[in-house]
Amino acid sequence: MTTTAELMARRQRLLGPNVSTFYNDPVHIVKGEGVWLWDADGNKYLDCYNNVPHVGHCNPRVVDAICRQASTLNTHTRYLHEGILTYVERLTATMHQSLSTAIMTCTGSEANDIALRMAEAVTGRRGIIATDATYHGNTALVSQLSRSNRPEGGFGLDQYFRHVEAPDSYRIIDDDGSLFAADVEAQIERLIASPYGFAALVVCPFFLNEGFPTQCDGWLQKTAEVVRKAGGLLICDEVQSGFGRIGSHFWAYEKQGVIPDIVVLGKPMANGHPVGATVTTSDTMAAFRNSFRYFNTFGGNPVSCAAALAVLDELQERELMAHAKKVGDYALQRLTRLQQQYEFIGDVRGSGLVFGAEMVLDRDTQTPAGEFTDRVINAMRSKGIIHSKLGRYKNTLKIRPPMPFSMENADLLFDTLDDVLQNTPLKSNG
Amino acid sequence: MTTTAELMARRQRLLGPNVSTFYNDPVHIVKGEGVWLWDADGNKYLDCYNNVPHVGHCNPRVVDAICRQASTLNTHTRYLHEGILTYVERLTATMHQSLSTAIMTCTGSEANDIALRMAEAVTGRRGIIATDATYHGNTALVSQLSRSNRPEGGFGLDQYFRHVEAPDSYRIIDDDGSLFAADVEAQIERLIASPYGFAALVVCPFFLNEGFPTQCDGWLQKTAEVVRKAGGLLICDEVQSGFGRIGSHFWAYEKQGVIPDIVVLGKPMANGHPVGATVTTSDTMAAFRNSFRYFNTFGGNPVSCAAALAVLDELQERELMAHAKKVGDYALQRLTRLQQQYEFIGDVRGSGLVFGAEMVLDRDTQTPAGEFTDRVINAMRSKGIIHSKLGRYKNTLKIRPPMPFSMENADLLFDTLDDVLQNTPLKSNG
Repeated sequence: MTTTAELMARRQRLLGPNVSTFYNDPVHIVKGEGVWLWDADGNKYLDCYNNVPHVGHCNPRVVDAICRQASTLNTHTRYLHEGILTYVERLTATMHQSLSTAIMTCTGSEANDIALRMAEAVTGRRGIIATDATYHGNTALVSQLSRSNRPEGGFGLDQYFRHVEAPDSYRIIDDDGSLFAADVEAQIERLIASPYGFAALVVCPFFLNEGFPTQCDGWLQKTAEVVRKAGGLLICDEVQSGFGRIGSHFWAYEKQGVIPDIVVLGKPMANGHPVGATVTTSDTMAAFRNSFRYFNTFGGNPVSCAAALAVLDELQERELMAHAKKVGDYALQRLTRLQQQYEFIGDVRGSGLVFGAEMVLDRDTQTPAGEFTDRVINAMRSKGIIHSKLGRYKNTLKIRPPMPFSMENADLLFDTLDDVLQNTPLKSNG
Repeated sequence: MTTTAELMARRQRLLGPNVSTFYNDPVHIVKGEGVWLWDADGNKYLDCYNNVPHVGHCNPRVVDAICRQASTLNTHTRYLHEGILTYVERLTATMHQSLSTAIMTCTGSEANDIALRMAEAVTGRRGIIATDATYHGNTALVSQLSRSNRPEGGFGLDQYFRHVEAPDSYRIIDDDGSLFAADVEAQIERLIASPYGFAALVVCPFFLNEGFPTQCDGWLQKTAEVVRKAGGLLICDEVQSGFGRIGSHFWAYEKQGVIPDIVVLGKPMANGHPVGATVTTSDTMAAFRNSFRYFNTFGGNPVSCAAALAVLDELQERELMAHAKKVGDYALQRLTRLQQQYEFIGDVRGSGLVFGAEMVLDRDTQTPAGEFTDRVINAMRSKGIIHSKLGRYKNTLKIRPPMPFSMENADLLFDTLDDVLQNTPLKSNG
């Protein structure tokens, strides 16, 4: 039996330094099914974290689609194949009619890398705006969207990027989004005054990495107006927020009452099979395709399209968006009850199957309890519940399970959380 | 039955303009097995082109590995899993001992994007050199390595790239590679005199897109010396040339007698499953990992690693590299015979299962016969043989079949080619 220490040593030797794992005691997972994971010792975990296996770990319909297509044909888009056409038809049918064309990629990073170049191709400008607590991917260009992950190097690409303060419904009063719109406008003006001009705003329309602030429907409309007035593009990165996750809408941009120029997709799109996409209008696509001879060898291959199509089928036939709404509403009720019990739960938020609680040392000062949150997460892991944290201060429980997550699963999650919160001191003993 | 015209119209509408297909009459492929492909009308094609299905279309061992792992667990590297460790151990065991660590990605483009940032992290400089007839991928940064695919936009990244004339054993006498080394040195000097300095040379060590010029073993050594003397990194993109394809060596850098600082992998690595990797020394990995917080959600997932491992197993157990050498040697004999018959075959070249013939209007002037080459390829397609063209003048037949390609397959290829060459006029009638 390989020990954790041995695996960690092999990782360090083979993958290099700074390849982080979750939890103080990393989990060695060997098997998954639905919302469950098993480690090498046979321990079972309720997965309250992973959004990539969107329709459940090892979903039989997706696995079957992959196996069938992988044993029939896997090739590239220089030949004709119905798979990519059927999928793009089905995908774009879920979006606003203007969003009618797509480039399929292998990752959300590749899709964002395309989106930024589309913005440059359409506007002839290079200035990009994002929030100061976001993450959109890992290419040299896209990694500059993150301030937290921002590389020191990166071929000087940082010059084109400006950041606005992330929305924070717990600390910043901005009920109708006008403060955020004003911040974006100020950065647009800075970019217009620079040699770069303003090309695009990139946001997750549910501000997921930012800690999914509570926002009224249509909150992003004022921002979209500001972006359009300046001739920029609105890029909605729906990698985390899309495919029905938020329960109320299939795409979070719909809740925001805006129509993006570009929608970026990734992670859950094919349940873990490496698939992403950039969806846009036919004009923006033509501008890009006429500027760049883009080809992606694996992008849109028949196996990837079969896997992605099976995810759409599964979502629709099992009505998983409505399910996410029902379980999510219940989860918020249970979180609210915990907030009434525990002074350190400063705020509870979420929609559908993405929800969480913000931990504070003191409700009046709203001082983030990041270290406490860490201990809670590690204690939950030791009790067989897997989730994580996120947000501006990394003090918000991040609960974002596979979509088949049930009421019963929610009960186990919150019963365990209640137990852990009772037994975890707010101040560390160490 | 969907017609080709209908499929082309749907492609245009859903994927946008400029999404090119192979052949004047595009092929609608629906099934693959080994070295064979079938179209929707039931026509069978001998695949002499596709290097992605490296161990054969729908290779049973690879398909089985994908199915087994996809139905057991597919997750990311924030948890421990033996799959990625076993694979990186097996992969790096095939390389020079200094190349001991890897980052797994989903595409060769992502892997090259990392490689360029590694060069910046190690050297603190940004100037990159490549040949003027190469291709290394599609991200904003990596696409600048190609002069042919070079975007007009691209966030000003073109400033860091310099190009040297591609080697061309048919037209340029450079038996020991000193001319190429001198060209690289001249560009290094230009970069040193610029604000960017010299960071790295990126080459395919078999110069595949350049038309795989005939080169003696060790041809790249003088170039490597020039690169090292200037404190730059040698990045070998083995996406096309690696995994035993050239028959004589598992990696083309070995034939070149050099030890790269970074090896980039992609296409054939997992037989079409989206997998790439950047392999490097522990020092270079540490420099990158300490500069960039790189994480790739799908990179190194258990299914990708299982697929990639099955490819290594298949190559080794079926001794496909030795097989490639045997069939490749025979193919060169047959090509040489065709060259004796046909005046317009100016040169025949290749090694292992990558070979081809350069078509010229006149042997004395060596004038490329690009349009003729196009007609040959289209005629071959209509006779059920799939290949393409490449090289500096796009006049070289590009024959690069899956590795199980047999002597019998080679006979069918060359018998058909002989027939097509006899019946295709050198000058177009149109």
